[in-house]
Amino acid sequence: MTDDARLRLRPLGIDTQQEFVIYMQHDCHVCRSEGFEAQTRVEVTLRGRRIIASINLVDANLLAPEEVSLSTSAWLKLDAAAGDFVIVEHAPTLDSLSAMRSKIYGNRLDAAALNAIVGDVAAGRYSELHIAAFLAACAGGRMDLQETIDLTGAMVVVGERIDWGRAPIADKHCVGGLPGNRTTPIVVAIAVAAGLTMPKTSSRAITSPAGTADVMETLTCVDLDVPAMRRVVERVGGCFVWGGALSLSPADDLLIRIERPLDLDSDAQIVASVLSKKIAAGATHALIDIPVGPTAKVRSDQDADRLQALLEQVAAAHGLQLRVLRTHGSQPVGRGIGPALEAHDVLAVLRGVAAAPEDLRMRALVLAGELLEFCGHSTPGAGRSEATRLLDSGAAWTTFQAICEAQGGLREPGVARLREAVLADRAGHVSAIDNRRLSRVAKLAGAPGSPTAGVELHLKLGDRVQRGMPLFTLHAQAPGELAYAKRYLATHAFMTVASEVPQ
Amino acid sequence: MTDDARLRLRPLGIDTQQEFVIYMQHDCHVCRSEGFEAQTRVEVTLRGRRIIASINLVDANLLAPEEVSLSTSAWLKLDAAAGDFVIVEHAPTLDSLSAMRSKIYGNRLDAAALNAIVGDVAAGRYSELHIAAFLAACAGGRMDLQETIDLTGAMVVVGERIDWGRAPIADKHCVGGLPGNRTTPIVVAIAVAAGLTMPKTSSRAITSPAGTADVMETLTCVDLDVPAMRRVVERVGGCFVWGGALSLSPADDLLIRIERPLDLDSDAQIVASVLSKKIAAGATHALIDIPVGPTAKVRSDQDADRLQALLEQVAAAHGLQLRVLRTHGSQPVGRGIGPALEAHDVLAVLRGVAAAPEDLRMRALVLAGELLEFCGHSTPGAGRSEATRLLDSGAAWTTFQAICEAQGGLREPGVARLREAVLADRAGHVSAIDNRRLSRVAKLAGAPGSPTAGVELHLKLGDRVQRGMPLFTLHAQAPGELAYAKRYLATHAFMTVASEVPQ
Repeated sequence: MTDDARLRLRPLGIDTQQEFVIYMQHDCHVCRSEGFEAQTRVEVTLRGRRIIASINLVDANLLAPEEVSLSTSAWLKLDAAAGDFVIVEHAPTLDSLSAMRSKIYGNRLDAAALNAIVGDVAAGRYSELHIAAFLAACAGGRMDLQETIDLTGAMVVVGERIDWGRAPIADKHCVGGLPGNRTTPIVVAIAVAAGLTMPKTSSRAITSPAGTADVMETLTCVDLDVPAMRRVVERVGGCFVWGGALSLSPADDLLIRIERPLDLDSDAQIVASVLSKKIAAGATHALIDIPVGPTAKVRSDQDADRLQALLEQVAAAHGLQLRVLRTHGSQPVGRGIGPALEAHDVLAVLRGVAAAPEDLRMRALVLAGELLEFCGHSTPGAGRSEATRLLDSGAAWTTFQAICEAQGGLREPGVARLREAVLADRAGHVSAIDNRRLSRVAKLAGAPGSPTAGVELHLKLGDRVQRGMPLFTLHAQAPGELAYAKRYLATHAFMTVASEVPQ
Repeated sequence: MTDDARLRLRPLGIDTQQEFVIYMQHDCHVCRSEGFEAQTRVEVTLRGRRIIASINLVDANLLAPEEVSLSTSAWLKLDAAAGDFVIVEHAPTLDSLSAMRSKIYGNRLDAAALNAIVGDVAAGRYSELHIAAFLAACAGGRMDLQETIDLTGAMVVVGERIDWGRAPIADKHCVGGLPGNRTTPIVVAIAVAAGLTMPKTSSRAITSPAGTADVMETLTCVDLDVPAMRRVVERVGGCFVWGGALSLSPADDLLIRIERPLDLDSDAQIVASVLSKKIAAGATHALIDIPVGPTAKVRSDQDADRLQALLEQVAAAHGLQLRVLRTHGSQPVGRGIGPALEAHDVLAVLRGVAAAPEDLRMRALVLAGELLEFCGHSTPGAGRSEATRLLDSGAAWTTFQAICEAQGGLREPGVARLREAVLADRAGHVSAIDNRRLSRVAKLAGAPGSPTAGVELHLKLGDRVQRGMPLFTLHAQAPGELAYAKRYLATHAFMTVASEVPQ
């Protein structure tokens, strides 16, 4: 490589998230000699570190001909400093893209192909376009059982894997779709209070207004690395950690960032995402909550059967014990939808406040009871009452506080600056709640980006309504977000009030 | 909308191709009040024009808090000027994305859904991720016949459609892949000389060293709008116009730019792309040239059969008469590769010069003969001799000159300032020509940006070679470009000379 192939880095400070972009000048001699154009994929090398990036061409007022810049994520990945010299060359051909195209064309992928694809995704070698195409190709039931097993294995292999050196290691997961179903913090508190080891890693929201990590972040620090997580678990038996900082199944996070704008879910991706995280986190016993209901993620028993069978088969192939519990998914759980609003509900249940949402409490007790039996702590049939005892005695709340203290301290979640109640325009009863629209309203109001934003529900299905009574309250930090949620609501009501008079 | 929601445009000059990007400062008050983050999709309004763009957040050294910038394509789309004020709001929900997801999940799309998707693509409302997912969902034979018919119709509907008020209107198209296969100007000249109406629209190069529009631009003006095109066709019966200025099937160009980096071809997309342009241009009779060969786009007769059947069925559904002609796709056509070099070949054939490339002449005569029969000008079997008569008599050349005069005048294409022959380093025969590498060399030499640049071939497959004999000549305008082409050639020969002695 001759010296004139080197280009000097100048910071511009442009944030393109996970997509690596290199900014080059139109008249740059390397662009001309290499035939680079806008969007050409290139390999950028700095002191032995390499990334693949897409070119954005810029005018002479931003960069000199011998200068280049990198988007923020690319700059961090290369550990670059202003004035460093990089080499920019044509990106090597990615063999795994042929496998991806083969999948698009309807062929199945073997373990080697999936390892190659997932490895390239994890290494940042796929553009967002490639990831989008891969996800679309795998969605809609186009991955068979063995492909799903191999995808799960590939996602474990590319990341770190924790060995706790003991068993059982308890874990739980809810296959989303039910707004406000924030049982995890309560279940962990009960399980750990019972003496189980439950090192819980959680994700942030993908398409929902809040993930467990978003909720727990309003209460304590969740950005722990593996050594810090180990210290917490050794001391108190459990933890609440954001999985994204741990490099457990790192490809999953990159895939999820593209699934989100596409609003894509597929059984294979769900199973691989859920189980790869559990396996990488060292779980031996995983309890999976599948809410089933007309507006939940899983809408019918038939869909639940399919997903359950796939979860069980893939878990078994990887030596993970797995139990599935189906729950009702007909309406939201608790009162709050959004990180801080859900945290308030969780605290109310743990503290045993009289006004605590009973549905959230009952769901958490059912799951915790099942987990206690599954992990051999309680005899069959005795789990629920043991869980209830641990919650009502305050043992779970004490454990919860101990975990949060070990993670850096427990804090009270905030309250949004702007709150506006939406009132009933007629008398009657609540006849339907559309979970998807409710989630959308909470997101438009700012959740989870604004942790205090979301929707506070005042009514459950079947509740009687007087005209002018508040149905729910919108919580937002920014006027624009409040206005956007209201604009959407004007044409997309999520709560239906049926007149009392039979039609 | 209050005044403080307005943000001042400052040019940065960043080319992100078709993806509309808005650059906003981290501390911008609109970002903060609206809850915008990197990659949020927003609607940008300027004097009643609206686009949907993705946010890239930038540091304070690039933009002041009340300033924003736009990528080059977004800037042009809004017809923006430095200092203009734009409004930036949350992008509206796109209902067509639900249809797109439904396709990903394996359901078929009806005409209304396809109209909605293609309409949103054409309006720039889809991000590149959405387009990539849509393309992947439709590839691999997942579009049935009716969907392909409806996709084609949708692509016509979103653009302009020309009605010539008469029939037949002749058209031709080549399903790409062969460098130098520039038959179109000759076929049009012959067909129009025979009295047919042939208002030809063509594209510029996408990944190749020259498109028909690039070649014709070295001979006359091709940037005509629809009224100008009409005047030319009414006067002389045909034209050579760059389709990009006409807004015929505008979604096609946007889809093609994403298909390219994904390296995705699907029959449905090819057929919809080709036929939507023809239908929008008002053609009644379309002749399709499908070169079949190991380095052409269509590699086997089986692939050609499938493509041909689909072209015929979709054309029939739209009332377009269509005939397919398969040709050999084993090696480049003519001598020149690059806009002016190919124009010289075209002129030599039209002028009947003894040294005119015989392969180009023969391919043009075969296609023109077929077209004359297809449009009812010649009886079956008599087309080729009629085409030959029109070419050899000089009638086609006279017609060609008349068309160019009507478009603003015929000019002689230029000749590159720098020419350098590459000599054989051994005796033998030409045993292989790699079309892909040949195209790359022509592009590195400057084609199509420098119209006179490219490669002039002196030999065909099988030709005997003496040591020291010129194999081909590089044409370039700039010493740097000549050097880039030579540097690439040093490690990527495109013409293989096999020794005469059997190995």
